[in-house]
Amino acid sequence: LRILIDAMGGDHAPKEIVKGTVHAAQEWDHSFVLYGDEAAIKKELSNYQYPEERIDIVPTTEIVYNTDDPAKVIRRKKDSSMIRALKDLKEDSDAVLVSAGSTGALLAGGTLLIGRIPGIQRPALTVAFPKDKGMMLLLDVGANVDCKPLYLQQFALMASVYAGNTLGIDDPKVGLINIGTEENKGNSLVKETFPLLKESPVNFIGNVESRDLMESDADILVCDGFTGNIILKLVEGLSGYLFSSLKGSMTQNTKSKVGALLLKPALKEFKAKFDYNQYGGAPLLGIKSGVIKAHGSSNHVAFYHALRQAVLFHENKVIEKISDLTKKEKE
Amino acid sequence: LRILIDAMGGDHAPKEIVKGTVHAAQEWDHSFVLYGDEAAIKKELSNYQYPEERIDIVPTTEIVYNTDDPAKVIRRKKDSSMIRALKDLKEDSDAVLVSAGSTGALLAGGTLLIGRIPGIQRPALTVAFPKDKGMMLLLDVGANVDCKPLYLQQFALMASVYAGNTLGIDDPKVGLINIGTEENKGNSLVKETFPLLKESPVNFIGNVESRDLMESDADILVCDGFTGNIILKLVEGLSGYLFSSLKGSMTQNTKSKVGALLLKPALKEFKAKFDYNQYGGAPLLGIKSGVIKAHGSSNHVAFYHALRQAVLFHENKVIEKISDLTKKEKE
Repeated sequence: LRILIDAMGGDHAPKEIVKGTVHAAQEWDHSFVLYGDEAAIKKELSNYQYPEERIDIVPTTEIVYNTDDPAKVIRRKKDSSMIRALKDLKEDSDAVLVSAGSTGALLAGGTLLIGRIPGIQRPALTVAFPKDKGMMLLLDVGANVDCKPLYLQQFALMASVYAGNTLGIDDPKVGLINIGTEENKGNSLVKETFPLLKESPVNFIGNVESRDLMESDADILVCDGFTGNIILKLVEGLSGYLFSSLKGSMTQNTKSKVGALLLKPALKEFKAKFDYNQYGGAPLLGIKSGVIKAHGSSNHVAFYHALRQAVLFHENKVIEKISDLTKKEKE
Repeated sequence: LRILIDAMGGDHAPKEIVKGTVHAAQEWDHSFVLYGDEAAIKKELSNYQYPEERIDIVPTTEIVYNTDDPAKVIRRKKDSSMIRALKDLKEDSDAVLVSAGSTGALLAGGTLLIGRIPGIQRPALTVAFPKDKGMMLLLDVGANVDCKPLYLQQFALMASVYAGNTLGIDDPKVGLINIGTEENKGNSLVKETFPLLKESPVNFIGNVESRDLMESDADILVCDGFTGNIILKLVEGLSGYLFSSLKGSMTQNTKSKVGALLLKPALKEFKAKFDYNQYGGAPLLGIKSGVIKAHGSSNHVAFYHALRQAVLFHENKVIEKISDLTKKEKE
């Protein structure tokens, strides 16, 4: 197995990407290929002892930024670490790719360069979400802003295969994001999706309201990409806002400052619970190769976890299993 | 002006409803009509000195609960405080109605019994939301789960009239909830709504992402009722969850308990900022009479503010102004 790595993607690239890769190479017997600025990568590598024969560098000259138009990256940034890695991935059935770079570019590039699994209508963007107990997958979070019921059904199928085979969740529970728990609730999309999910070979537990997001039993939550993106950004924005407002309240006078100091360990633990880094990455589901998107703010621990998910993705044949399920559904 | 009051609606009815009403009657020269359990209302009233000639009671025998099916309340709970008040409202052009009861029932009852303003396609449910600086109105939050661009444009028009005339916001800024700030972003509904809002006689400031909800400049945020309901419940659920998790972290050992004690005033102030009660109520927009929905957990202060909004709604001729704007739009 070759793990292709976009060494220039993410807020802490290439430093944390290289560090996470070295850690993985010390543990597993796979080959790692770092795409990016050769000098910068070599400099980072020089800090570590590592199995040199299993970490290669493919020098590239460009970087895809979050500000780049995803639709234009393939043509305009041909020699970027992300696009070069995606092109090599296409030619290599025994490889997977991990990137902490632009989600939109990875989605556009992955879909166009790699192509869809036959029978899959639309690839979906997933995100791993911390919740009260453990984590959950939310999809689609932005790849498909206008969805049909069949897309949502396929999202549930794909995510179930992924969660079962790489996250170690036995018979993962699937919930449908809705504005009420009753079967007849919701807009026309979710009303039509509900019976499809009931008939599907997934462990469908019914509608889940957004107010119960953090405490839901579901391991997987499906919705259209518009709704998913709204939810993802609202959770990020609101928790960030609440934490920073709280910080403001805590430092307004001496008494509250002393209180905040005493609470520091408890608050640190509280924040760690909602730390994306411990959840590694989330897959682009529905394309013909394994592509794991690590969170943009990934440190080396998060990136190491994302690499681990890529390995499990490949070893547990997630794509073959999705492909088989889709064929069965058709019959 | 007669203010019709559903005295049995809300978590703290009739106690807090009556108390808020008495406070209002002591301040303003209007007539107040309390619908509900006569004995219970009289008992509450007996605690106060108030202008008896301006507070009437209409005895009713039933109560609409949140668990009642909104579509069936009109037929099944004919003698409920809410339905009786709505029926009297229909006959009285010089009255407004305030209820802290079931939102769904109020919407269904209001729409069916009172009827739409000519030219308005769909009534909308609004909610007043605390944000970093002041508050904003979000609509629709659940009345219309499948929307057309024209509905969203009318929501923006109606909310602009309301905010300008009852909340004292000069030239209120309207934002469109979207998954990106650029004009070409979003699902087909918002993509088609964007140019309509640009042409409308409202102060349209463009797309607003959910991550910026709390810090947006917008006074009014429009979206379809499915998205709005998801946002509303996610904000309520997530902030509730974060606060209670935080509380858990704060009481895990003696040191953190002392810290929490010192922080108490600061945290109290912080929580007050997000207290719905200070924002009173929000209108059902698009029907032919003034109906203000107070938050279900309203205490007497919140209910008093909701009554105040009802008075301003009537005095500032919100319905006539919406009606005029709709006619102009048509021409």
